[in-house]
Amino acid sequence: MARIAVVAGDGIGPEVVAQALKVLDAVLPGVEATEYDLGAARYHRTGEVLPDSVLTELAGHDAILLGAVGDPTVPPGVLERGLLLKLRFAFDQYVNLRPSRLWPGVAGPLATVKPGEVDLVVVREGTEGLYAGAGGSLHRDTPAEVATEESLNTRHGVERVVRDAFARAGRRERRKVTLVHKTNVLTHAGSLWARTFAAVAAEHPDVDTEYQHVDAAAMFLVTQPQRYDVVVTDNLFGDILTDIAAAVTGGIGLAASGCINPTGAYPSMFEPVHGSAPDIAGKGVADPVAAVLSAALLLDQLGHPDAAARVTGAVAAELAARTPGAPLRTDEVGDRLAAQAVA
Amino acid sequence: MARIAVVAGDGIGPEVVAQALKVLDAVLPGVEATEYDLGAARYHRTGEVLPDSVLTELAGHDAILLGAVGDPTVPPGVLERGLLLKLRFAFDQYVNLRPSRLWPGVAGPLATVKPGEVDLVVVREGTEGLYAGAGGSLHRDTPAEVATEESLNTRHGVERVVRDAFARAGRRERRKVTLVHKTNVLTHAGSLWARTFAAVAAEHPDVDTEYQHVDAAAMFLVTQPQRYDVVVTDNLFGDILTDIAAAVTGGIGLAASGCINPTGAYPSMFEPVHGSAPDIAGKGVADPVAAVLSAALLLDQLGHPDAAARVTGAVAAELAARTPGAPLRTDEVGDRLAAQAVA
Ligand SMILES: CC(C)[C@H](C(=O)O)[C@@H](O)C(=O)O
Ligand SMILES: CC(C)[C@H](C(=O)O)[C@@H](O)C(=O)O
Repeated sequence: MARIAVVAGDGIGPEVVAQALKVLDAVLPGVEATEYDLGAARYHRTGEVLPDSVLTELAGHDAILLGAVGDPTVPPGVLERGLLLKLRFAFDQYVNLRPSRLWPGVAGPLATVKPGEVDLVVVREGTEGLYAGAGGSLHRDTPAEVATEESLNTRHGVERVVRDAFARAGRRERRKVTLVHKTNVLTHAGSLWARTFAAVAAEHPDVDTEYQHVDAAAMFLVTQPQRYDVVVTDNLFGDILTDIAAAVTGGIGLAASGCINPTGAYPSMFEPVHGSAPDIAGKGVADPVAAVLSAALLLDQLGHPDAAARVTGAVAAELAARTPGAPLRTDEVGDRLAAQAVA
Repeated sequence: MARIAVVAGDGIGPEVVAQALKVLDAVLPGVEATEYDLGAARYHRTGEVLPDSVLTELAGHDAILLGAVGDPTVPPGVLERGLLLKLRFAFDQYVNLRPSRLWPGVAGPLATVKPGEVDLVVVREGTEGLYAGAGGSLHRDTPAEVATEESLNTRHGVERVVRDAFARAGRRERRKVTLVHKTNVLTHAGSLWARTFAAVAAEHPDVDTEYQHVDAAAMFLVTQPQRYDVVVTDNLFGDILTDIAAAVTGGIGLAASGCINPTGAYPSMFEPVHGSAPDIAGKGVADPVAAVLSAALLLDQLGHPDAAARVTGAVAAELAARTPGAPLRTDEVGDRLAAQAVA
């Protein structure tokens, strides 16, 4: 039986995670969920962000379901670096998987794209690059201050995520991988990514490949999102590109993600791309679709593709039946999705 | 009389720059233009990218008008680092100015935005960050390869570009500056940017301010580009965000930019955001509007705001009269713009 650690977190996190659990429970009866109190509230109460003992306990689960962490009352970086990124790095979740589909029924912002036409997945590297935390500053608060941030990239880290992207592309209809980087400026890291990509591509003659600079990719995601199938890219570029992909497919309210360790050595983590949205927290109006779709990714990762497909199908039905702009109730959406997923 | 150095460059560069010069000549008769042969062709012929003697000659001009550099036959980085970025850094062009307007007559990709509603300018830092060229690699082409890229940020460099952004905002109607960074992950550089921004903001109580993470800004540029007035950001974030801004306002075919040294110690450089577009080069079908709007920025910088306004007005008339999707001839557009600008 699947043992899930639940980190509901801050803001709308608890509300949307409750719906995801409702749906999980419907399609996989007996799933065992253990709640962990982490996030802004615990930080304010105890000063703790992620105690080692909790990290050890989390490691014993099959997967982690995360709502949202972050609150304006906590200094920038404390929860992001201390909790979210700590988990991604400690559990070596090197595949940050972010699918984007323009679902029928969803009013996207683009005049040029019809529902059903966009179906892409970004495979964002999750454990390297500018997220390594390698940086510092000197002469702080003086006119001589200098601050650095270092992007660290290894052949090991790049190759494993590129391999994952090609494997995913091989299982999809269009079988295409786009590498996004900035090889014309970031010549060292860019060259490592480009050479590694070329080497892995040579082993996959059945997969089409292309390369784009990150600025061009940001533009084409707006003008021609249909052109992408699988996109593989570095940690920070992936952060930016997946928000654009979410924006053109109806907003981060619908965007799911998985921080995956494909080796299974540590649990993978699933979380909506949206944040804690403190402005609407506690009102019961947050859209739980992104959390529920994240639960579908979790099911897929844990070896329950049929259950995952039922959840995804329920979301498709829910979205197709919506009136754009109409208000929604978080728990009602959860009830409908749970019922639909087992119908 | 204004002495302009012209670097027409590669691909469509010469075609579009010719139109920009035509228009400059019309509104500022007697402007003295000296052509410099730099780019892929010279590199292939002589192996030279930017000889020191040419750099010295360029320094003696009032401004530089650049078409496009880059060609698929030249390894990534050679012309970008050796020519374009070399000029930006050597001439300390710390303000990379990129205005975006959704002009009446232009069919943008967004269903949610009407022409006239978007009028923003990105003030991109031009001489620091990940563009500093600080990086390297070890154990190249082995499984142990590691590659680094370092973002270097100084109080000096951040403060001067933030000051420029506030000064520009003070001259605009909405008087708003948005700082974009990633303070929750890039905590050292992000903190430097945020503290510097706060200090300069305190001197400008008449200017509204806001902060956004780069991923959120990328999203809002797609869903609500109307909300931005002046955006100030780091070199790489600016590279990405300005391509999104261009995409939502009709494409990089219309996007102008200036690499400005506001002190006047060295010449500023003006260039369309688009690249050399080798696929359509030499056919006379490239849209020269971005090059012509770049010439308008040049006129403004050289102290000819009336001439700049005439050029911008001519572009507005040209775009309003266009049938979206209809083919165009580069030189005919240039002729019309030159005539209209002095009408
Ligand atoms: C909260 C932040 C650290 C995080 C990131 O940058 O990865 C978020 O933006 C995301 O995309 O999951
Ligand atoms: C060609 C490249 C070096 C350049 C940049 O990254 O600045 C371009 O993308 C731009 O935006 O002017």
